[in-house]
Amino acid sequence: MTPTLERPALLTDLYQLTMLGGHFGLGGRDRRAVFEYFFRQLPPHTGYAIFAGLDEFLGALECMRFHDEDLAYLARLGTFDPAFIEYLRGFRFSGEIWAVPEGSAVFPYEPLVRVSAPLAEAQLIETLLLNVLNYQTLVATKAARIAEAAEADPILEFGLRRAQGPDGALSGSRAAYVGGCAATSNVAAGQRWGIPVRGTHAHAWVMSFPTELEAFRGYAKIFPQAPLLLVDTYDTLRSGVPNAITVFKELRAAGRDVRAAIRLDSGDLAKLSIEAHRMLVSAGFDDPLIVASNDLDEDLVADLKRQGARINCWGIGTKLVTGGANPALGGVYKLAGIEDAGGAWRATMKVSGNPEKTTDPGVKLPVRFYDAAGHPAGDVLFAADEAMPEPAQRVHSPDRQFSGRRLTLPQHSKRRVLQERVFADGRRVLPERPLSQIRSFAHEEVAALPAELRRLRNPERYWVGLSEELARRKAAEVERLEALLAP
Amino acid sequence: MTPTLERPALLTDLYQLTMLGGHFGLGGRDRRAVFEYFFRQLPPHTGYAIFAGLDEFLGALECMRFHDEDLAYLARLGTFDPAFIEYLRGFRFSGEIWAVPEGSAVFPYEPLVRVSAPLAEAQLIETLLLNVLNYQTLVATKAARIAEAAEADPILEFGLRRAQGPDGALSGSRAAYVGGCAATSNVAAGQRWGIPVRGTHAHAWVMSFPTELEAFRGYAKIFPQAPLLLVDTYDTLRSGVPNAITVFKELRAAGRDVRAAIRLDSGDLAKLSIEAHRMLVSAGFDDPLIVASNDLDEDLVADLKRQGARINCWGIGTKLVTGGANPALGGVYKLAGIEDAGGAWRATMKVSGNPEKTTDPGVKLPVRFYDAAGHPAGDVLFAADEAMPEPAQRVHSPDRQFSGRRLTLPQHSKRRVLQERVFADGRRVLPERPLSQIRSFAHEEVAALPAELRRLRNPERYWVGLSEELARRKAAEVERLEALLAP
Repeated sequence: MTPTLERPALLTDLYQLTMLGGHFGLGGRDRRAVFEYFFRQLPPHTGYAIFAGLDEFLGALECMRFHDEDLAYLARLGTFDPAFIEYLRGFRFSGEIWAVPEGSAVFPYEPLVRVSAPLAEAQLIETLLLNVLNYQTLVATKAARIAEAAEADPILEFGLRRAQGPDGALSGSRAAYVGGCAATSNVAAGQRWGIPVRGTHAHAWVMSFPTELEAFRGYAKIFPQAPLLLVDTYDTLRSGVPNAITVFKELRAAGRDVRAAIRLDSGDLAKLSIEAHRMLVSAGFDDPLIVASNDLDEDLVADLKRQGARINCWGIGTKLVTGGANPALGGVYKLAGIEDAGGAWRATMKVSGNPEKTTDPGVKLPVRFYDAAGHPAGDVLFAADEAMPEPAQRVHSPDRQFSGRRLTLPQHSKRRVLQERVFADGRRVLPERPLSQIRSFAHEEVAALPAELRRLRNPERYWVGLSEELARRKAAEVERLEALLAP
Repeated sequence: MTPTLERPALLTDLYQLTMLGGHFGLGGRDRRAVFEYFFRQLPPHTGYAIFAGLDEFLGALECMRFHDEDLAYLARLGTFDPAFIEYLRGFRFSGEIWAVPEGSAVFPYEPLVRVSAPLAEAQLIETLLLNVLNYQTLVATKAARIAEAAEADPILEFGLRRAQGPDGALSGSRAAYVGGCAATSNVAAGQRWGIPVRGTHAHAWVMSFPTELEAFRGYAKIFPQAPLLLVDTYDTLRSGVPNAITVFKELRAAGRDVRAAIRLDSGDLAKLSIEAHRMLVSAGFDDPLIVASNDLDEDLVADLKRQGARINCWGIGTKLVTGGANPALGGVYKLAGIEDAGGAWRATMKVSGNPEKTTDPGVKLPVRFYDAAGHPAGDVLFAADEAMPEPAQRVHSPDRQFSGRRLTLPQHSKRRVLQERVFADGRRVLPERPLSQIRSFAHEEVAALPAELRRLRNPERYWVGLSEELARRKAAEVERLEALLAP
């Protein structure tokens, strides 16, 4: 049987199993550990991300078991001890997970998910977590940008045929909807999550009839309620639009209250849409629906808007479900703290030759501060065990990386701890939310962001800093590690 | 249940079902039709593609059924006639498929798959075909380029955590192996296709011990056969490599015949690998295995080679399984011919405002001509119903697009019809080949290409032209369509 999110145990990198086998062999597997998921960088020109995929991940975690054939395969590899294979037979994820709600606007370096579990369990789920959250967050973020560019126009997600594999398509459709798409062409995604499905006909429909006019008539006969006609099979303005007008008039003559609706899929979309709109309106069809598709993304949509294109619905495929030129969000899952052999708790930190890969030590709690107008003003990472400042207290937040740079957060303002507990005792602890509700929440999150974060080019960089206490601990840990390395 | 390749009926764009419903309603669904799959453009700087995914697609086609819950969902949409829903209940793909063998080196505009079936069936499978073949061909092609850059070094595919969804990862691992990777970290892909799996430990392993040295000792204790140590958690040259050397010496002192093996995952890989190599060799470990990873692609691998980096194994993730900045192959599936209502056969052709979207009319047979040295010299698309030229006959091939340009193919040389029959009567007709055999075939295909197609920058453009007969038919069809549009 194909590994899927319903059967995820082997959807993992081999090294998770070798490490798990290692901890098993050395007796350290039950030490308590905390890992955090975060990303370091937004896609270019992007001011925020929409966190997505959480519910899918938690659902997969609930079904994570090693089945007999999985264990037989691992045994055949010859690297694992039989006692370890037996241990895997009883494997269940027993840990606790805290996470930012799905649909939240999020930023680099803030922990979006915190996994507290016996070391072996926390380690084993890394790959699954990254696979699901990285991709869906990428696509939801891209969808939010495209929605921004399209202003109030609906966006239809048409990516299935260019998505990276069947499941890439499926979870891509889900995330695109969370990020702001109105509907998908992907029937399986409609079935699974109740996402509205849309679509009409392809060039092949037109070519399968002797003439374009016959093809349009045939289509209107079968779907007279709302025939959306693809007009560019032969020549948009000389053939497609005139034939479409003929058919819309015939429907009207037959007493149908029809809204003229066409789709453009090639050529100069600005010019063609303006001209087609003029032709449709002259023929008596006010407010025609003009859908455009053809390798679009947020930049092309914004540019077409700027040119006055008369397009009021956008079909976006490839560049939405793949992320375009930036097809991966580089989210990572890093050890934040661990119980040592003696039972003492130790905050951990990774120092790297690439400075941006250096982590912040220990378990962190991200808190969002809002300004008087209700816009997010900055996020501060507190050490999970430090006392939260009182509302009257002035909070200074040092930069994560650059010395001498800090932000003072608004006093007496609304603030919100971003994480909530979502998983415990092998189960989700929050009721599953309908996808449309996650989508609405994402919409509110984006609407609350200041305009300078939402723009499509050179958005401002949102503040994610440390608490003063965490900054002190980080400096001390860097010093300690450096001393160990001194010659 | 999740739609997957074992349950693919609803993995389709809604418009396939509306068109199918349309043909059902108008009575045209059983007219014989032929569709062809091809792509128009290679990724930038890429001289050839490796065709992949065929066997996955054919396997999915064998299981394509509409299950009760699928039909119930479609009925709930309210757009389909109950009689049509009943028709879907009995749906099986009954057509015939010809295809280029999986692993072939292929080029733009040549038909890679030909589907001959009743119109409704041929239309319905489009999305599934495109989803599987576009993505796997993209990744196999990328893998072949990376293998080219790495010269004889093995490449390990590490993409699961950044792949686009679980199945994107799975079919990505499959295609990467076809294109030339030696192994994958993806355990599920190993289980399913017998791809060798590789992997050792992460930074978290090191951080879960009080010191790096204890972490390395622990790892070597559990896996003393071939411990590959990740040396960049704190400081590669001051801490990681010295600690690794200590542990390799301890293993040697304990009588183990150990090959020193390290992985670099950050920092200046050229400098670090050269220095680490020097340290390992000075410590008495000749020929160490040095694996490098960190967002690599073929350009970075080639550049590191050029700088004399002492890396002899490459871990490649994100940019391999996503395709990097070009995350989709724009393969399309176009109607080539159809039986009209009266029973007459009609070759079809799409003319477009974007000239590169104009297709060649009718069903085509791609034939590869080889030069005396056995290198491919050019591919010619013949009309499927024209007579093949005799070996002694000189073949001239006009360009598909540019007038006045043509190639004369070598006479008396080896030639090969690229397609073979792969599916008939609802089943694959060729025995399934082991993936390792497809991989070997791909390797031979690449090896046979002339160097000017294999280079990583500005490769030459391979000839895919028309037969003289097909060129005549195309010109006549353009003229006929143009006459219809004349004012």
